[in-house]
Amino acid sequence: MNYPNKIKREYHKNVNYANRGMDLEYIINETNEYLLEKDIALIYKKPTPIGVVKVSYHNNKQVIDKAYFASQSTLDYNGLYKGKYIEFDAKNTESKTSFPLSNVHEHQIKHIRNVIKHKGIVFLIIRINGLFYLLNGTDFISFIDSSDRKSIPYDYIKEYGYELEYNYIKGLNYLKYVDIIGGFKNEEI
Amino acid sequence: MNYPNKIKREYHKNVNYANRGMDLEYIINETNEYLLEKDIALIYKKPTPIGVVKVSYHNNKQVIDKAYFASQSTLDYNGLYKGKYIEFDAKNTESKTSFPLSNVHEHQIKHIRNVIKHKGIVFLIIRINGLFYLLNGTDFISFIDSSDRKSIPYDYIKEYGYELEYNYIKGLNYLKYVDIIGGFKNEEI
Repeated sequence: MNYPNKIKREYHKNVNYANRGMDLEYIINETNEYLLEKDIALIYKKPTPIGVVKVSYHNNKQVIDKAYFASQSTLDYNGLYKGKYIEFDAKNTESKTSFPLSNVHEHQIKHIRNVIKHKGIVFLIIRINGLFYLLNGTDFISFIDSSDRKSIPYDYIKEYGYELEYNYIKGLNYLKYVDIIGGFKNEEI
Repeated sequence: MNYPNKIKREYHKNVNYANRGMDLEYIINETNEYLLEKDIALIYKKPTPIGVVKVSYHNNKQVIDKAYFASQSTLDYNGLYKGKYIEFDAKNTESKTSFPLSNVHEHQIKHIRNVIKHKGIVFLIIRINGLFYLLNGTDFISFIDSSDRKSIPYDYIKEYGYELEYNYIKGLNYLKYVDIIGGFKNEEI
């Protein structure tokens, strides 16, 4: 009885592939693997930090028996592109009109300020309304510093962000805009 | 009966503070915290990747019930210094005459080559004979590419590496030599 429903759901998933159905983290990871394979950039997702509570040994190998997921104090992705340090995070929002700032932890905002200060390239990839935008860290911080609002209006993201294109082989073309915000030559990748 | 022995051991530990007694990872972490506090560089240890086998939920919070430690395919530390990408690993060796290459995994060697190719700054901090050396990634790779030996002789490390100084407040002065290998102005930090 449930079988046809299941198939239907999976079919929908494929139709909405790069939009809602596919996990944003998955898309970014696939993109970074493509960039690594093609020798364009070295970008890795940092492992999720964990707090280990209990460990035991089996055949001289450590096994974690109890642990919990901790939160990252930096952003999830960082790496190397054309000699420069780049770091970013990927964020989904269900809201159609704005990006709630509660998506970014206080220590991550502090870290974004730090990366800017030390001349790194830092940005957010935001998925809103089924579209992907790159928002430069400087524009993100400008908003925070000039507004008391608890969310960034979609109009701000459209005006200051760069809309990304998704390709099922190359993934998201975010480096195209890193070339722009990082002051590199703007070349198609 | 055991008490005096224990005190003696702890005393020895303090005497050898920055040498054998103190964990190298601890020293590096303290150094990086100092660099962060003083706003000199943003260097973080990547969390150890884990493979999660089993998860359960308690009061809506995820708890890891079974997992194992996985190996890092990159190096342990990376970050941002003067706009540049830097990455390194810290390695102990018990041998007094050489640094066994078995300390560095094959995929890490590949990654070091990649970082060099993409113009990042990459190096190892090696503790040997109670001393600390920074060995530039290019000198590390040169050795591998020109020798069939399974370990790097101490003489090679002394000749091509930079001996680091340890200070109990500032930690290891490795950025002094990053300034040199990265082609920055050589300034005392």
